[in-house]
Amino acid sequence: MMKDTLRKDFEELAEKKIDSTQVFDGVLLKVYRDNVTLPDGNPSVREVIHLYGAVGIIPITKDGKVVIERQFRYPVNDITIEIPAGKLDGPDEDPLAAAKRELLEETGITAKKWIPMGLYHPSPAYTDEKIILYMAKDLEFGNQKLDEGEFLNVDFLSLKDLVDMVMDGKIIDGKTQLAILKAAYLEKGSTCQID
Amino acid sequence: MMKDTLRKDFEELAEKKIDSTQVFDGVLLKVYRDNVTLPDGNPSVREVIHLYGAVGIIPITKDGKVVIERQFRYPVNDITIEIPAGKLDGPDEDPLAAAKRELLEETGITAKKWIPMGLYHPSPAYTDEKIILYMAKDLEFGNQKLDEGEFLNVDFLSLKDLVDMVMDGKIIDGKTQLAILKAAYLEKGSTCQID
Repeated sequence: MMKDTLRKDFEELAEKKIDSTQVFDGVLLKVYRDNVTLPDGNPSVREVIHLYGAVGIIPITKDGKVVIERQFRYPVNDITIEIPAGKLDGPDEDPLAAAKRELLEETGITAKKWIPMGLYHPSPAYTDEKIILYMAKDLEFGNQKLDEGEFLNVDFLSLKDLVDMVMDGKIIDGKTQLAILKAAYLEKGSTCQID
Repeated sequence: MMKDTLRKDFEELAEKKIDSTQVFDGVLLKVYRDNVTLPDGNPSVREVIHLYGAVGIIPITKDGKVVIERQFRYPVNDITIEIPAGKLDGPDEDPLAAAKRELLEETGITAKKWIPMGLYHPSPAYTDEKIILYMAKDLEFGNQKLDEGEFLNVDFLSLKDLVDMVMDGKIIDGKTQLAILKAAYLEKGSTCQID
């Protein structure tokens, strides 16, 4: 039923692309300005950033500790507590392969068990970026192999403490908040039992 | 203790701005390219989008229904199920005032009870955008007052069903996933009894 509703919404609400012009070609950010037609027939402009997307991994040890990173984020000028994560190399890269690579590079960890936790769009108003989340378990620890120019510190915190930190505002990164709450849900079987 | 750790991390990991150049001045997106110095002294470039930020509101009725919107999102070319939300008008706008305005405009609802649910940065790798979340309760219903060029449909779903939809991948908007899981956490006593 919801599927039919969404199809009808699409017919009613979709905007149609007239043309698209690249207005900035950066190292990371590719920005486009598109002319579109709104549902009422009026013209409008959409500014869109095209990104291949990224993966985020919440690695959990046998005794319930989560491997987290502390790193500097220039746009917010602060140290953020984040799960391991990284960009997809291209539009066709297998997200699980990317997740395995990023986890190994950033933390030295390989995991035997990978549990998909879905994807989300951080900002569907202006970018097609998607972030695909995984839980990683049965961990084996090796050495970090950071990319050149990449700097971060690795630490361990309990999932329970991390849920408190999400709810108390001590974790400000969106993918990390979501991965922690989803992991708490999956580990407990029910959101009602998060504690 | 974590505070001391984060201060030491900042000293060790912070990148220093050398200069900043605006490379795109759009209607919505203001893009800057900054030259920075990395922690090891090497130069690098950061591309940053400056945004004032936004608010998102999860309105919950007395019988545990959540007011959601279905709208077309051009960058992902799809209908998304989202909580009511909107941009801050400027850097100094009170987020609660913005939340009240956006909820009224998009759904016609005024709420007597506002519960802060924290903020997060959707993409701290390339933007300073923050999203501030609220739960709204004790709702009174009036008429939508949509902005010109704004089109969306309003619906009601139970919080319990929405949690399932987040975990099953039927809701792809990040702020909506987060608001639902945070609300389920805060409501956990009553959530278990809904339906």
